[in-house]
Amino acid sequence: MAIRLGPNQYGKAESRVVRIYRDTPRHQIRDLNVSSALRGRFEEAHVTGDQGDVLPTDTQKNTAFAFAKEKGVDTIEEFALALADRFIGVTPAADGARVEIEEYAWDRIVVDGTGHDHAFVRNGGGVRTTVVNVDGSGEDRTAHVVTGVKDLTVLKSTGSEFFGYLKDEYTTLPETHDRILATSLVARWRYDSAFTDRGAVDWDKSYGSILALLLQRFAEIHSLALQQTLYGMGEAVLEQHPEVAEIKFSAPNKHHFLTDLSPFGLENPGEVFIAADRPYGLIEATVLRDEAADAGNAWHGVPGFC
Amino acid sequence: MAIRLGPNQYGKAESRVVRIYRDTPRHQIRDLNVSSALRGRFEEAHVTGDQGDVLPTDTQKNTAFAFAKEKGVDTIEEFALALADRFIGVTPAADGARVEIEEYAWDRIVVDGTGHDHAFVRNGGGVRTTVVNVDGSGEDRTAHVVTGVKDLTVLKSTGSEFFGYLKDEYTTLPETHDRILATSLVARWRYDSAFTDRGAVDWDKSYGSILALLLQRFAEIHSLALQQTLYGMGEAVLEQHPEVAEIKFSAPNKHHFLTDLSPFGLENPGEVFIAADRPYGLIEATVLRDEAADAGNAWHGVPGFC
Amino acid sequence: MAIRLGPNQYGKAESRVVRIYRDTPRHQIRDLNVSSALRGRFEEAHVTGDQGDVLPTDTQKNTAFAFAKEKGVDTIEEFALALADRFIGVTPAADGARVEIEEYAWDRIVVDGTGHDHAFVRNGGGVRTTVVNVDGSGEDRTAHVVTGVKDLTVLKSTGSEFFGYLKDEYTTLPETHDRILATSLVARWRYDSAFTDRGAVDWDKSYGSILALLLQRFAEIHSLALQQTLYGMGEAVLEQHPEVAEIKFSAPNKHHFLTDLSPFGLENPGEVFIAADRPYGLIEATVLRDEAADAGNAWHGVPGFC
Amino acid sequence: MAIRLGPNQYGKAESRVVRIYRDTPRHQIRDLNVSSALRGRFEEAHVTGDQGDVLPTDTQKNTAFAFAKEKGVDTIEEFALALADRFIGVTPAADGARVEIEEYAWDRIVVDGTGHDHAFVRNGGGVRTTVVNVDGSGEDRTAHVVTGVKDLTVLKSTGSEFFGYLKDEYTTLPETHDRILATSLVARWRYDSAFTDRGAVDWDKSYGSILALLLQRFAEIHSLALQQTLYGMGEAVLEQHPEVAEIKFSAPNKHHFLTDLSPFGLENPGEVFIAADRPYGLIEATVLRDEAADAGNAWHGVPGFC
Repeated sequence: MAIRLGPNQYGKAESRVVRIYRDTPRHQIRDLNVSSALRGRFEEAHVTGDQGDVLPTDTQKNTAFAFAKEKGVDTIEEFALALADRFIGVTPAADGARVEIEEYAWDRIVVDGTGHDHAFVRNGGGVRTTVVNVDGSGEDRTAHVVTGVKDLTVLKSTGSEFFGYLKDEYTTLPETHDRILATSLVARWRYDSAFTDRGAVDWDKSYGSILALLLQRFAEIHSLALQQTLYGMGEAVLEQHPEVAEIKFSAPNKHHFLTDLSPFGLENPGEVFIAADRPYGLIEATVLRDEAADAGNAWHGVPGFC
Repeated sequence: MAIRLGPNQYGKAESRVVRIYRDTPRHQIRDLNVSSALRGRFEEAHVTGDQGDVLPTDTQKNTAFAFAKEKGVDTIEEFALALADRFIGVTPAADGARVEIEEYAWDRIVVDGTGHDHAFVRNGGGVRTTVVNVDGSGEDRTAHVVTGVKDLTVLKSTGSEFFGYLKDEYTTLPETHDRILATSLVARWRYDSAFTDRGAVDWDKSYGSILALLLQRFAEIHSLALQQTLYGMGEAVLEQHPEVAEIKFSAPNKHHFLTDLSPFGLENPGEVFIAADRPYGLIEATVLRDEAADAGNAWHGVPGFC
Repeated sequence: MAIRLGPNQYGKAESRVVRIYRDTPRHQIRDLNVSSALRGRFEEAHVTGDQGDVLPTDTQKNTAFAFAKEKGVDTIEEFALALADRFIGVTPAADGARVEIEEYAWDRIVVDGTGHDHAFVRNGGGVRTTVVNVDGSGEDRTAHVVTGVKDLTVLKSTGSEFFGYLKDEYTTLPETHDRILATSLVARWRYDSAFTDRGAVDWDKSYGSILALLLQRFAEIHSLALQQTLYGMGEAVLEQHPEVAEIKFSAPNKHHFLTDLSPFGLENPGEVFIAADRPYGLIEATVLRDEAADAGNAWHGVPGFC
Repeated sequence: MAIRLGPNQYGKAESRVVRIYRDTPRHQIRDLNVSSALRGRFEEAHVTGDQGDVLPTDTQKNTAFAFAKEKGVDTIEEFALALADRFIGVTPAADGARVEIEEYAWDRIVVDGTGHDHAFVRNGGGVRTTVVNVDGSGEDRTAHVVTGVKDLTVLKSTGSEFFGYLKDEYTTLPETHDRILATSLVARWRYDSAFTDRGAVDWDKSYGSILALLLQRFAEIHSLALQQTLYGMGEAVLEQHPEVAEIKFSAPNKHHFLTDLSPFGLENPGEVFIAADRPYGLIEATVLRDEAADAGNAWHGVPGFC
């Protein structure tokens, strides 16, 4: 009976790298949470305990901070790719690397109508994320970028129905033609490597445009189910963004139940709700285009989507 | 040896009341977390188990939802006062009531440059809070309102020093004349009952103005310590807001440590930091005016400040 | 209009001090979370920014780690008192100090029926806590110790009723003579300074005995309300522990609602429940003895109980 | 350019099902967190919004509660399989179902040396988990069971080294021959379908035995790296449990850094540590046997391992 090592990876998770650009009095801030993981031929480290192939996780952390100075943090996508290439380059046993980065947004504090030079307030809206997976180097190198947004909480107070569903003997849910629809959205989109391999994506511009489009479509679509809303949002992204090959959603249906005020002689025509915690619906869906480049390892280690 | 009941209170915590105003196609949303607690002569409930004096916590919850329809939610301060008065009115054994409300802000989703009528995105910045304490009713009624903001994360990338402090043999911290100053601010201010008792406070206007002022002063003050920054912020509020008797702060000093890049031959002139989790400094301070009305029970049950 | 500094304190929160005793091959582990805060005459630090009176929070942290070596950690109560006295001793402006410690328990991993010498598994049950408040030094020194337990989740599957309560027009809750009673208990008891001042308390023995008694009484008392259960638990502690002057409870009523299975033709005689998150009842009560020494500053800065 | 729906699933997450067995005065409690998700041919629900194929998540929740009465909860593995088969059976468009259950353990409260009949205290140690994936029904049915434990926090105060690792110019970590090794373990093992398909696994016995073995091996193995410890733990499970085809680990390396007490003239020979929060190492590894049955969909939707 042969027992052996299967898939494995290791790295440093959640290094909180904060980079201040202070070349002029008007500072810029990039506030990141960086995680990296290497995969490959690490049998010795596991089976005999010999660590000769292992670049320590502490070194991975050091590299993230050093690169924040040496390379700078222009976009999280480029920063992640640079780290992944570095780790593969210096670790012969590493066949591939995954680097995941979250970026927290800060707004300038407004004083006398103007944004302050070096004082900021955290913008608590959605968090920008990226996961890059790189395999190999040189001619054999393949790289995938999956960018996204999480913790984006949205709500529609009308324009949402749910009816005509399948029923069995455990079904008690009444159909509705007007409900609150709310979710804390996670969306992650895979860039087409035909675009990214030739540097044809403006990361910041693409992110901003897709984020706005997701919000717009959530608002505009008359919803017959969260599934249909998500599909419509994804379809719009693919239609307008040729650089995107695929988009995935994970969306908890944050239930808002109409409270029964009839015991108190009160009507409640869609005005008073209780926001519930658990349980919640959870809808996961992918929208993709047929002719896109293959996903390969793109979704490896993408939280919630692999 | 006489054993007896001491101070006590009971109530329903964290009812998530969501109120939609849909009288016109342009909906409004008020998204609240409501907690209430009654205090008074409840010996029987504890000592013999007789619950005849006890208005159930379930009833307190029902009242919050019913009032959201009957009275509406104009401001959280008025809503909290109405609930407190109600609970004292129907519970003979209750000498006083505390009602705490958090309000989560939502922005309209922008479509074609305009805020949508009924689609919203959660604004993840600071959370508005209020705690009201009412004792008695009729002629003997006293009421206190403590409004505030929490989870307001702010950062200055320069303009902050820390030097000249007391040293002992366990002191290793080097003095600095340029550091990052960051905190997740909790501020709570007590309204002067001389103002609130005659309805002389515009709750929304006062809140908005104080919030802006706190941010402005945080940005403007050249900091010699978080204590001095907080004091300056509080002083400004008291100077410009006669309706405020007192303001209290609780501010974790969210340390951002300059990373040592010298092993890699790199300088780090205030550019690359690691944001640390624990431990953290914790600064708590009160700024008040001498001639203000007495605080009485105002700070009873105010989280983190009693 | 005179504006001035009111009550204030500052310190280092949540230093995670882990002390290993390895004098013999059978190691001991003490796993602590230490927070300290100084209060006193710190006007200069706030008003002018002069930090000459301020012992840095970083020094407070260093002291906690150094004392873990120099003094050792026998009990968290003694360790906290030693830190508080130290901080007052070296900080002339400090009138008082609060030190709060949580201790996480570890069990030895069992191998071949025996606890291992140096391998442990975290015991996830209740967390032991202490908050000490010391004011002054030498002849004028007063010291208070409030020890307790938190995150102690207990449940009774029967032996709990709730009926005979006050009703108003918003009351819909049906009376019950059999329900689940569950809470995540926080209990904190103040030691009588007449005992602690002469070193008459065996901290570990007292804690262990009180914890067992609280659990026993929770189990034994036929509950007519959570209030009555808590009172009975506290009464037993005071009756059997003369060293305790007072005990306070904060207990969320973690609702378990009987699910309605009648639409499926099923009876549910107290067998299937849904455990709810929010809202929850919150019951807070104090049991004390009349002739106990005065509480003084004992409850200053005790989370949830001040 | 063809845009279409890709992989998708939907269901109800985190139904908190509590089942009390009260057939005798000595009650039993099963405390579960149940999540289910259906996958299959749900294009209409997404593309046109027609929900005719969709069994509502609310119905899935109802079924979990109804089954807790009808079928009872003997083991979470059987309960999960029953739910998965049910959902596939009543939902023609569902090709497969995933059901995930966490079970929280409760100990009886000890009164006079004996466990109480109906009073319990939550055992805060590791949480038992299972994820079952079923595809198809009848002759075409395949089923996989992945059971595990999470939140199992373990620590060794010696017997752990880390040296001989790969170094580059960003490596600053000193080698060590004695350090604290600590992790909050997640382990999940896939049962060989050759065993489970013929009902040859005693779920409770297998779980208890594997849990004890994991702890024992963690204690016994002299660690050269967390990778090597995990491999040894997994190897022991496979050697002693023929019913297990594969085991996967996800283990944060919870760093405990030796504090530098030399500025205070103190030595620190492995006695005083600071437990750090972030960043942390993260080690993920699989140990498997070659001849085991194919994994198929077994790891679909297993949190952290897919």
